[in-house]
Amino acid sequence: MRFTFFKQPAAQQPAIGIAVARGDAWFDVAALDLPFALTPESVSSLDEKARASITRALEGCNAAPLALDALTLLPPVAPGARIFCVGLNYADHADESKMQKPDFPVIFLRSYESFVGHEQPLVRPRVSEAFDYEGEMVAVLARGGRYLGIEAAASSVGAYSVANEGSIRDYQLRRGPQWTMGKNFDSSGSIGPCLVTADELPPLGKGLAISTRLNGETVQQSNTDSMIFDVAQIIAYVSEAFDLRAGDVIVSGTPAGVGAARKPPLFMKPGDRVEVEVERIGTVVNAIAAE
Amino acid sequence: MRFTFFKQPAAQQPAIGIAVARGDAWFDVAALDLPFALTPESVSSLDEKARASITRALEGCNAAPLALDALTLLPPVAPGARIFCVGLNYADHADESKMQKPDFPVIFLRSYESFVGHEQPLVRPRVSEAFDYEGEMVAVLARGGRYLGIEAAASSVGAYSVANEGSIRDYQLRRGPQWTMGKNFDSSGSIGPCLVTADELPPLGKGLAISTRLNGETVQQSNTDSMIFDVAQIIAYVSEAFDLRAGDVIVSGTPAGVGAARKPPLFMKPGDRVEVEVERIGTVVNAIAAE
Repeated sequence: MRFTFFKQPAAQQPAIGIAVARGDAWFDVAALDLPFALTPESVSSLDEKARASITRALEGCNAAPLALDALTLLPPVAPGARIFCVGLNYADHADESKMQKPDFPVIFLRSYESFVGHEQPLVRPRVSEAFDYEGEMVAVLARGGRYLGIEAAASSVGAYSVANEGSIRDYQLRRGPQWTMGKNFDSSGSIGPCLVTADELPPLGKGLAISTRLNGETVQQSNTDSMIFDVAQIIAYVSEAFDLRAGDVIVSGTPAGVGAARKPPLFMKPGDRVEVEVERIGTVVNAIAAE
Repeated sequence: MRFTFFKQPAAQQPAIGIAVARGDAWFDVAALDLPFALTPESVSSLDEKARASITRALEGCNAAPLALDALTLLPPVAPGARIFCVGLNYADHADESKMQKPDFPVIFLRSYESFVGHEQPLVRPRVSEAFDYEGEMVAVLARGGRYLGIEAAASSVGAYSVANEGSIRDYQLRRGPQWTMGKNFDSSGSIGPCLVTADELPPLGKGLAISTRLNGETVQQSNTDSMIFDVAQIIAYVSEAFDLRAGDVIVSGTPAGVGAARKPPLFMKPGDRVEVEVERIGTVVNAIAAE
């Protein structure tokens, strides 16, 4: 089952609309006759029975499909969720970054506002030209908890998506030891094009091809099997500090090929078009805009 | 004007109560006859006229004062605010940490859930004994914005408070290059005892004595004048990446004396009592509990 989130017209409540796919067509869940309310927080927590309800309601739905092109898509994550990013989680990327292969997942936080949705512009800030791409697989929690063991962590994933974890490299790497500033510029990353529920994918999203294309040229190409820490290990580790909640988000790290590691560096500039694809999940596409 | 936040009984809405001080007595703002609603987000944005309204309402208030001791105090910050912490912002602490004096503010994020209020237990997690104190001054924004200049940043502070930016040192420093995990353990830090509006304090909270006491013994003693980056410089820098909002929080860094830099190290253990005092703002006091 596939969902995406869109911005409702200004006056309408709730502010975030949710669309669900029937084949290639997308329908507003508000138009479905469902026995429960679907919210940005609950979409990744659906059990088999709830998904069957939605499937039945979709089959009986006579509403017109949504014209997604005419909507502003949002990152398909809840605004109140914590977004945990993982650094250096592919050995080839740790190598190209001249950083040590980590012994524990390297965790940092990104704000909701640092991400835009599919087909929304990524904004290169006026203070930097070092705007880099990072293709990543995203996992969204169906349930939370503290001190999750590996098995509980593995079964806690409810859905997957794709991120471009766009990074302002000078602010990230040349201004001190912490990456937070360079990883949090407003509208510098994207998540999309949709959420795919975990039942449609291999356990932990393993074995999926992941690639990034800049203006049509492949700049990153790997497989989620090459992650140093898989999604269950990441979630278990994060839950040692955080009491996790349904809807919390894991952005699981990027493989080699980032622009900053190239000679000469290859950064994204206004007018460019960047795509991140994860097999069986989708492709998040964004144009780069000048601020 | 002084405010603090408390947890309402389970059934009551809103979930967060706000108290305001008249001398040594505290009153529930819900009991005041005010011409506007006061929320956790708006308390640090009051202009002179709004403060005068509250003063008048307080003078005419016949309600019984609150028994703060009987309430669960919360961090006096809005749950939806971003909490920006600053590392290495006192030269003597950078020295003792064997870190370079920073050229730019070193920013990392903490979650709301990593903080408790005044007189609530700080929790030493079961996975570590390296639980360290950090006394810090807190600034809360009255208004936000992007690319704030120093003057706009200086005038954006609406209120001040005090934090114990409790840190799990092994997770912060020995598990990789990013501090986020060790700085975000649930209930590992505190903010309190109250918010003091900016009109009652020197510009940028400068010239205030700051000290930390562990079981009555002074372990940190400095002055906010010793910050490398003052509050306006921090806010201006953070606003290069983030479009700041009213209610966002700056936790401005700690002076020398932390437990991890001592020989032997001095960590907080269950049964300890820790106090952080900033002159003219207040003292946030917490006992340490085992998880």
